[in-house]
Formats: sequence, C-alpha cells, structure tokens
Amino acid sequence: MPSFSWLLALYLAALTGNTDGAVARESTERNCSLTPPYLPSTAVNTSLQLEELRVQMRAMNISAYIIPATDAHLSEYIAPRDARLAFMTGFTGSAGTAVVTLNKAALWTDSRYWVQAERQMDCNWELEKDVSISSVAEWLISEVPKGDEIGFDPFLFSLKTQGDYNINLESSDRSLKSITENLVDKVWKDRPSVPPDSLTRLPDRVIQRTWQEKVEHIRTQMGDNPYKPTGLLLSALDETAWLFNMRGNDIPYNPFFYSYTLLTMDEIWLFLHVERVTEELKVYLNASCEGALCVQLKGYDTILDHLKNYVTRPGVKVWIGTEYTNYALYEVITPQDKLLTSSYSPVLTTKAVKDETEQQILRDAHVRDAVAVIQFLMWLEKTVPEGNATELTAAEYVDKCRSKQKDSRGPSFATISASGPNAALAHYSPTKETNRRLTVDEMYLVDSGGQYLDGTTDITRTVHWGKPTEMQKEAFTRVLMGNIEISRTIFPSGTRGVNMEMLGRRALWEVGLNYGHGTGHGVGNYFGVHEWPVGFQSNNIGFRAGMFTSIEPGYYKENDFGIRIEDVAVVVPVQTKYGNNYLTFDTVSLVPYDRKLIDMSLLSSEQLHWLNKYYETIRSLVGAELDNQGLREEKDWMLRNTEPFAEIGSSASVSSSSLTLIALAVAMLHNIV
Amino acid sequence: MPSFSWLLALYLAALTGNTDGAVARESTERNCSLTPPYLPSTAVNTSLQLEELRVQMRAMNISAYIIPATDAHLSEYIAPRDARLAFMTGFTGSAGTAVVTLNKAALWTDSRYWVQAERQMDCNWELEKDVSISSVAEWLISEVPKGDEIGFDPFLFSLKTQGDYNINLESSDRSLKSITENLVDKVWKDRPSVPPDSLTRLPDRVIQRTWQEKVEHIRTQMGDNPYKPTGLLLSALDETAWLFNMRGNDIPYNPFFYSYTLLTMDEIWLFLHVERVTEELKVYLNASCEGALCVQLKGYDTILDHLKNYVTRPGVKVWIGTEYTNYALYEVITPQDKLLTSSYSPVLTTKAVKDETEQQILRDAHVRDAVAVIQFLMWLEKTVPEGNATELTAAEYVDKCRSKQKDSRGPSFATISASGPNAALAHYSPTKETNRRLTVDEMYLVDSGGQYLDGTTDITRTVHWGKPTEMQKEAFTRVLMGNIEISRTIFPSGTRGVNMEMLGRRALWEVGLNYGHGTGHGVGNYFGVHEWPVGFQSNNIGFRAGMFTSIEPGYYKENDFGIRIEDVAVVVPVQTKYGNNYLTFDTVSLVPYDRKLIDMSLLSSEQLHWLNKYYETIRSLVGAELDNQGLREEKDWMLRNTEPFAEIGSSASVSSSSLTLIALAVAMLHNIV
Repeated sequence: MPSFSWLLALYLAALTGNTDGAVARESTERNCSLTPPYLPSTAVNTSLQLEELRVQMRAMNISAYIIPATDAHLSEYIAPRDARLAFMTGFTGSAGTAVVTLNKAALWTDSRYWVQAERQMDCNWELEKDVSISSVAEWLISEVPKGDEIGFDPFLFSLKTQGDYNINLESSDRSLKSITENLVDKVWKDRPSVPPDSLTRLPDRVIQRTWQEKVEHIRTQMGDNPYKPTGLLLSALDETAWLFNMRGNDIPYNPFFYSYTLLTMDEIWLFLHVERVTEELKVYLNASCEGALCVQLKGYDTILDHLKNYVTRPGVKVWIGTEYTNYALYEVITPQDKLLTSSYSPVLTTKAVKDETEQQILRDAHVRDAVAVIQFLMWLEKTVPEGNATELTAAEYVDKCRSKQKDSRGPSFATISASGPNAALAHYSPTKETNRRLTVDEMYLVDSGGQYLDGTTDITRTVHWGKPTEMQKEAFTRVLMGNIEISRTIFPSGTRGVNMEMLGRRALWEVGLNYGHGTGHGVGNYFGVHEWPVGFQSNNIGFRAGMFTSIEPGYYKENDFGIRIEDVAVVVPVQTKYGNNYLTFDTVSLVPYDRKLIDMSLLSSEQLHWLNKYYETIRSLVGAELDNQGLREEKDWMLRNTEPFAEIGSSASVSSSSLTLIALAVAMLHNIV
Repeated sequence: MPSFSWLLALYLAALTGNTDGAVARESTERNCSLTPPYLPSTAVNTSLQLEELRVQMRAMNISAYIIPATDAHLSEYIAPRDARLAFMTGFTGSAGTAVVTLNKAALWTDSRYWVQAERQMDCNWELEKDVSISSVAEWLISEVPKGDEIGFDPFLFSLKTQGDYNINLESSDRSLKSITENLVDKVWKDRPSVPPDSLTRLPDRVIQRTWQEKVEHIRTQMGDNPYKPTGLLLSALDETAWLFNMRGNDIPYNPFFYSYTLLTMDEIWLFLHVERVTEELKVYLNASCEGALCVQLKGYDTILDHLKNYVTRPGVKVWIGTEYTNYALYEVITPQDKLLTSSYSPVLTTKAVKDETEQQILRDAHVRDAVAVIQFLMWLEKTVPEGNATELTAAEYVDKCRSKQKDSRGPSFATISASGPNAALAHYSPTKETNRRLTVDEMYLVDSGGQYLDGTTDITRTVHWGKPTEMQKEAFTRVLMGNIEISRTIFPSGTRGVNMEMLGRRALWEVGLNYGHGTGHGVGNYFGVHEWPVGFQSNNIGFRAGMFTSIEPGYYKENDFGIRIEDVAVVVPVQTKYGNNYLTFDTVSLVPYDRKLIDMSLLSSEQLHWLNKYYETIRSLVGAELDNQGLREEKDWMLRNTEPFAEIGSSASVSSSSLTLIALAVAMLHNIV
C-alpha cells in the first residue's frame, strides 16, 4: 500500500496544476451555499461538540485549537479512542488537521479525501485543500486576532510539527500554547477506553535476538555515542514492541500496545497499562528486580512525571528520535544540555536491518502469502465472468484466503479492492455506497496484505479479465518497467531510496504519465505495514543489506482506471566487476503479473530477463509450498501464469534494427545462393 | 567543473571506507612527529600570526576562534583580502575551516586538499579530516573548558552554519560569541585593500530586462507574498550584479563587486564602494533621486547600521534568503516578526530561469567556446606526440584559444589540466611542482571554461592519444552513458536534480564504479561558474524550462587516471504522448567526445541515437561558426570527429539476440533454398 505524505500532495498539486477535486460532486455531498444548506444523510451534526469545545477554549483563554489526526506515539494508524478528529468533524479519513476558532471551524485534508469530507461534514466546517502547515498557519493568521494564543495538545504534535507551526506563526504575533490536557477528550463523553486484552510475547521460533540482547546492543550504541546519553526514550509503539519482542492489539491492523520505554545504562522503565501484563510476562521481563536487565513496569500515564523526575538527576542526558517523539515529552527535557536528538532512535535504525532469522521468516511469510493471493486471483478468474463478485466480496475473499495460512494474524490494512474508476483513487477502500460489481470490462486493482506471526506482507496486483485497451496495456507495462528498473538496479550501500525512486517513474514520464504517491515503504516482522524509516521518501534512511521495502509504482487515470504493481523486496549484497559494497533488490512477493496487460515490445532485454528470472523463483519457491499444501489446481494456475517469455529483441527500436539485420542477411543469402 | 560539498565528502568517506590520504606521503610533506619536526620549503611559519591572534582572543575573553574560508557574501571564490584562512594557516586550498584555541590550532579540510595542507602548514596546526561541523564541534568540546565562549565573525557564517554549530554545542555548556570585528583582520597588517577599479554595466545587446523591469518584477513577488515583506535584503554578490545588470572585478574568475542591496517597495539602497561608481553609472542608476526607481548609493560598510535603522521603522518586514545571508545581518533583524525567510531570495530563483535573450546569447557563447575547445584539442593531437606539451602549457593554450573569441572576458575558473594520475584528483590544477608532460601513454582530462560578456561556459573532455586500456574504455563509456542518460531523460517540470542524478551514476554502479563529486551545477550569463540554486545537489531547486546546468559524471582511479565528461545543457519543454508540462535537456556545449574511448557495444540503441543527434547539432551549429571564422582545418577536424556512428544493435545482450535471429533466418533460408 502506498504511503502518502503531505509534501507529496503539494508536489502533485504543483505538477498537475490540479487543485480541484478528482471526482465530480454528486448529491451525496453537502452543499453549504444553499439556503438552507443541503446535507446528505452521511453528514454528522457537530454543533454540540463544537459548542462544548469552545467552552473549554474560552476557559483556557485561547482563540483557536488545533486537532491533529494522530496519537501520542505519532502513529499512522490510531485506536478508536484517539479518533478525536473524527469525533469533532464527522470526517473519518486517516489524514487531516482540524482547527476550531471561537466562531469558525476548518478541516485540512488531501485530495484522496475531499469527496469523503464533503459527504461526512456538516456546514459548521470549511474544507481546506492545501494541507501544508503554512496554509493552516495562514488561515490561523487571518482568523485569530493579533496577540492571541492558539492551543494545541503537545502529545499529538511532533517536534517538527510544533516547529513548523512556530516558524509560520512567529512573525505574526500569534503564539502557540501547549495544553497537556486534551480539550477534545474533555467534551468526548463516550470516548472508548483502552482495551483490556493481555499483552503477548513472540514465541522463540520467530526470534533470533532476545530482548536482553537487544537491550545490550542498544546500550552499546548509547555508550559509543560521543555525546554520552544516559537514557534513551522510546515513544513509537513499534520501538517498545521490537525491543521486548512483545505485541498487543490496541491499534487496528497493527499488533502494538500503548507504551513508552525509558532505557538507561542501568535501568529499564517500561510504561504501559500494568494490569494487562500477565504473571508469565512479568517473569519474562524480569519485572520483580531493579538491575540493568530488569524491566520495571510503570503506569502508562506516569511517563511525563517520571521523565521530569529523571531529568532532574545530575549529569543525565536523554536521547530521543525527533520523528517519533511528541512535543510534550520533548519540552520537559530541559535545559538543552540534558537532550540529545537524532531523526530516528537507534532502536528504529537497528530494527530496520533484519537479522538472519527475521529475513528468513519474512521471506517464508511471503511464500505463504503468495499462496493466498494466487488462490484469490484464481477464484476471481472463475467468479468474475459469472457476475458474482463485487469489490466487497473480493476483499472478504482475499482475507479468507490469508486466514487459512499458517500463523495468520489477520489483514495488515483494510484491503484496497477497486474496480474501474474506483481504482483511480489510489487509497480507495470499498464501502457499501461505492461498491462495484467486478466485470470483464473493467480493470481491477487489489492492494492487500497480511499479518503473520513471522512477518507482515503487502502486495498489489492489477488485472483485467476481458480485453484491455492499448492505453491500459501501455500504462501497465510502463508501471511494470518502473517496478523492474528499481528492482534490478545495482547501487552502493547507503544509497537513499529518494535518489533512486525516479527509476520507478521514468518509463511513465517518457510518455507524459506519472503517479501521485510514494514508491515504497519499509515492511517488517509482524509490525505496521508502513515500517519507517526504510523506503523511498525524502526522510527515509539509506539502504543497507537486510532491509525490506515495498516497490510500488502506479498510474491512475481519473474516472477510468487505476494501476499499481507492488512487491516487497529485500536489499541484498551483489558482486560487481570492479567494486565492493554494492547492493540490489531481491523480490520476496511471489505472485505473477497479468500477462494480458504486458506489451512485450516495450520491455528491454534486461527487463525481460529479470522477469523470467523472477518467474523461475516463483515456480521454485511457491511451487514447493503449493505442493506442500496439496493445492494442485493453484499450482497449475501458477505454472500457466509463469511461463517464460521468449527473450528475443529488446525494445521496439531494437526489434526494428534486428529486422533490418535479418533482411540484410536474407538479401545477402539470396545473392550467395 | 564539479562543485563539491562537505556533505558529499562525508558520503564518500562512508562509501569507500577510505578516510586516509589519497596520495602517498613524500618528503614534500611536513612530519611533525620527528624531533625537530621536518618542514618542507613550502610550509609557512604561522607562529607570529597565531601569537597575535591569541592576544586578540584573550582581550575578547574567548577560548577559541573559528575562521571559515568564505567572505561576507558567502562566496565560493573569494578576493585576496578575504583569504583569512590562508593568512592564518599557510594553507591556500579553497575549502576549509580553521579553529584556534589559546594553545592549539587545527584545520579541517576535505580529501582533495590533505596533501596540499601537509605541504603548506607548519607544525602549529593539526590537520583534521572529517569536515562535518559536528566533528569541529566535538574537537571544540574536547579543547574548550566548560562554560567558556567560542568566538566567530558573524559576517562569515551563514545562518545554517551558525545553527549547526549551535545545535552541536548547545548541550555541551560551551557557547558561541558573535564578534563583528574580525580578529584576523586586526593582526593582518598587509591585508590587501578593495581594488579601485570602476564598476561597469552590461551593454544593451546582452540584456532583455532593464534593471527597472527587474526591480518591478521582484517588487511584484514581494507584494504577492502572503507575509507582506516591506524590504528585500540581497547579500550574494550575483544578486546585486543581476538586479542592476552590472559587473565588477573584485573576485577572481567572477565578475562581481562587493555589494549589498536593500530593495523596499518604494526605495532602493545599493551598498557599495561609492567612489567606484562613475558619473555615467550614476545616471544609469538614477542615483540622484529618492523615488521608487532611484538607486540611492550607500557606503558598503554602512549596511549593518542602515539595516538596524530600517528595522526600527514600524511595520517593516525584511525578506532574506537564508542560504546567502550572513549571520551578522540576520541577527539585527529583530524581533522575529520583522523577518521573513526563504532558502533563496526571489532574485536568485528568478535569475535561475533565463529569459529568451539570455538563453540565446548563452547558447551563442557556447558555440564560440566550442570553436576554442576544438582548436585546443586539435593542437593537442598534433603537439602531444611531439613531446612538447605539458599540463601547464596546455592550460595556457586553452585560455589563449578562448581569448581570441568575441566578447571573451578570461577563464571562468583555473583550468583543470590533468594527465594520468593527476586527473584522479577531481579538482587538480597544475602547479610547477606537479606539472606532467602530456604523452600518448596517459589519459588527459581538461576541465575549463570561459567568461564571455554573453555567457559563462564550463566543459570537460577526457582524451587519449595512444591506446587506452579496456578498463579505461569501459569506464569512459560508462561515464558517457551517464551523461547521455541524464541528457535524454524526460521528466515533469519541477523535478529536482537530486532525484535524477543517479542516472549519471547507474552505468558505473552496474560494475561497481562511482565518483565522488556532484553531477552538475547551474551556469549563467557572465556570472560565477557555479550558479546556484540550479543543479543536482540536495539544496538545489526543481528544474524549470530555461534553466542551464552542467551535467558531469566522472570516474577516478587512484594513482592511475581520471575521467570526466561535462556539458552544459538547457532545460527545454518536450512534447509527450499523453502528458503536458514535461521537460528534457538540450546540450549546448558542442564538442565531440574522443571516439577511441567509446566502447560502442555498451551503448543502448537509445544512447547511440542520442549521440548521433548531438553530433548532427555540432556539425550544424559549430560548423557554421567555424566557416564564419574561416577555420578550415578545425572544421575538417570537427567533421572527422563527429562522423555518425552506425545505429545497429543496442547492447551486448541485444546484439547477441540479433545474431541469433540472423542465424535463425539463415538456417531457415538454407532449408527453404
């Protein structure tokens, strides 16, 4: 599934000059310019919560309040109890920022969600489309009187977000006010509570490094740091989960639990809901002692007090990763010489490189995942022509196929099952209102993934069961060329994805096509499906052997069709003629592409060669697993769909020169004979 | 000529793991571990200036003083009077930072200059090789006692430099102290004065926009800015030179003059050495009035006072570009709401896109420049086998060839004329000590450029007059493939160079080769040869039609040879099959490559096609100019060297498949006949 950044949204708006909605307005959307305003049945009446929030705002003496869409761990997916934006606005999209003043309210969200916002919001809310912080700040400057304060919950702001607002407001005589008690929570009466489920530890068979080894390893990095940090604060949920080899179920699709960790050179403080830790887990964590390898359990809500307390100790210095530490924790680490920052904590950068066990089990999970996806594609091939499949039933079916695989733990995100024009919305998920029947006349895009105890998967295939147009074939082939060009490229260790991702776009650019999302993101062992800091975006770190990333170029034709081809690949060392320390990608998603959509004449000989080798790998690895699971029909389907392509000629221009050569040879022979 | 960033130096050190000197130590270098230390005759005794500087430091109560290599305009090239680093250290390289404490002194410079530093410095100085600011800061923390202050001249620090030092020192209890009177200048008795030469204006024939039009255009951008700046401060020397269509001779190779501009909505203040402005120029500038289009001339040294004064006016807001504004000017713009920042001023971003006249005359300058370089290459071809050419005589000769061309204004930088192993140092310029005779046994790299009244040029060719090795041919061809891949690529308007520059490296990476400098930089109309903010580095802006950039991949084999192929290209719109607003490059440097060094079997059919089209352009444009100048022999040489290559087959693998096809065809014919 493509990850989406606001920066990218801006870039796209700039590229296409298209700042207007992608989908025509229908009567399913509100119309606030009518008197009285027209509201569809999907719109939520937000008058009451706005009124109550403004009471709170007046009490705090602020003229505006900013409501982001994240949680205190700056998570991409959030638990229902953190869906404050949705509670306030009615809008349930995954990205957005709301601002409430004493007499206005506005929501900023990117082009993916404009239609949805117009369907879900009432006329209390303006919809703003430029999602940059500078745009929010400009709006604030126009709405908030000079000298007034703008409130925000520092737990929901990253350092960078706070800094960006600050920079944009600083010359305007409006200032930010950090308010640690969330004002939305105060008016949200039936806010869901933290789920009571017990936390779990990973079984030994999926672990190479024990938590004690990980702790020692991270402490070594702390000791090696020239600034000599005494403590490391972990805020992202996957940091604590990784360090202790533990998982939970607090966040949809993400096996995480609410937690922070403060790791010092001789103590370990784990902040969580202690009542959820079983006796067995307490033993596992050495929770009854206070030594260097004993985990002291502290209440989740006590982090701020404990941290404040810790920084009063003489000589301490707390290391934080700025990308995932919220401003509330950051602002108590004072004075400055108690603080050490890097973009990512050493836990995130260490976690990014998988150890041998992690690499192997993640590859294994992808083999089983391929079986599920192949079952699904085969089922579609049968079912769609009968007219019995819809986007929703297809999404259910792929989940079902995965659930039958060993160690399955459910989907890793809401399946994107999109037919025809719906696929042109890169992040579409089907709903009852939008659900389309799948037919042989439309292209179909399915982007889905599974959580397994040993790994997280994420794969996209685009298929056509009838006769694709020439343009669809060309676009699909050029997307595939992008995927192959990245996959087969050789690069020095440490090269950053952002400096290579244009290879995924180049074949499209050549004919004036492009796509509006990132080209790939990290993936890991039973974690979130977008695992930072690996990937192709500008704030991702350089590639090292042992990292896993998705590679997912695409093309989307408005109101017509969408194409995306996504595979997960592991970064592996490669032998070169002259140099050492070079890397390439080895694709671990093992599902064939729709042959009907490939225009062979566009592929270079190198691309063709890559494709055939990839298909060989599918035959060998997935073939064995299909045998193993006794899936004979699926095996036949797989073999049919991975028949090698003939490797002659390379591209249109070359083919023609080859033809010239043949003609020449023929002519010569005629003369000779 | 490749531009070099410190970041890149770090990247390279990380890549190669090579943090040691590239050239073996000889007795031409100092040896401070001997007693007494060994100093070569090239070493400079710096004891006296160090002693005197420390007196100044004690008077200011600072424990360390930082000496950068730039001037108050953060120029890349500096005038002799700004060579403070060289005066203090003896080291004359173009990049470095010196730090003096009360009992130690250290110089940081990158790998290009390690040998030179060991030759020029005495044993008062440590040589430090990790040129990151964090490394300087770590050294400062180890040498400066807690609580002490570290002095710096805020005129010689960019905001970013000051900020980087601050971040690295902030948690250490050592602080920076801004001292506006430069301490080196106080002890530098024979510091050169500002040259008395009069300033000049450009003739009308090379100008499309008068300075009045430019001022109006920039004021429009100020008016359109949502933060409503009232004044724009221009600090980089090319900003003022561009705005007023004026030039000077204060900086070697750069036609600039010491100046600042404060442009407000209704006034223009030009800060310069007023005595250098002729009466004619005063008329040209409307210097006798005070209206919106009158230029008020102010003394160069009064900028700080005038700026301080301006910011006391109510309601003013000063716009600065942070990349080129020094910290001294920045720190007087207080409080924060008087300040508006962007990375580059609107003058630099406007200047980056050439108007039609500028594009045409810059193309024209490159045609004449090609004539000079062709004359030079032809002369080498004759002279080298006779054994009469050296790196130095060759460098002189190419300057001479350029000086004969119309509107020549001298070289745009010191020619890099490098034979054999000398060319492996990417920034080598020949000196008496290092001068090599050119022979048919060594490769030769020449990177040179000219200043012309209508344009600045910069071109590199690598040649071999004997028999190159297979490895040399392969490396040259792969460098050429990199150059072609960038040149022929099609991309959306606004794409950033840093996201495409790997195309220049990819063919090299494939066999484990790489290069350690940037891939290109902006070039303009009679300005500095590295014209920011255009190019392929991470702080360059996105490409737009009308920008000019060099494209210059290379490969360097230590102690053996060096290859670089550099051309200047203009960004032009291109028609694509489906999309609008796509761009590509049109190469304006028009000199053929050494055919002997090209391994045709490596080129794809697309690359070959590009090469033939490029050679057609040379034949047409340079052919006409050679005719025009009556250079018959040069024309023949050019035609010989631009013979079209046969366009059959595309790459080794394709050729072999073509052969298979022929064999097949032949076999079939035999059966038929």
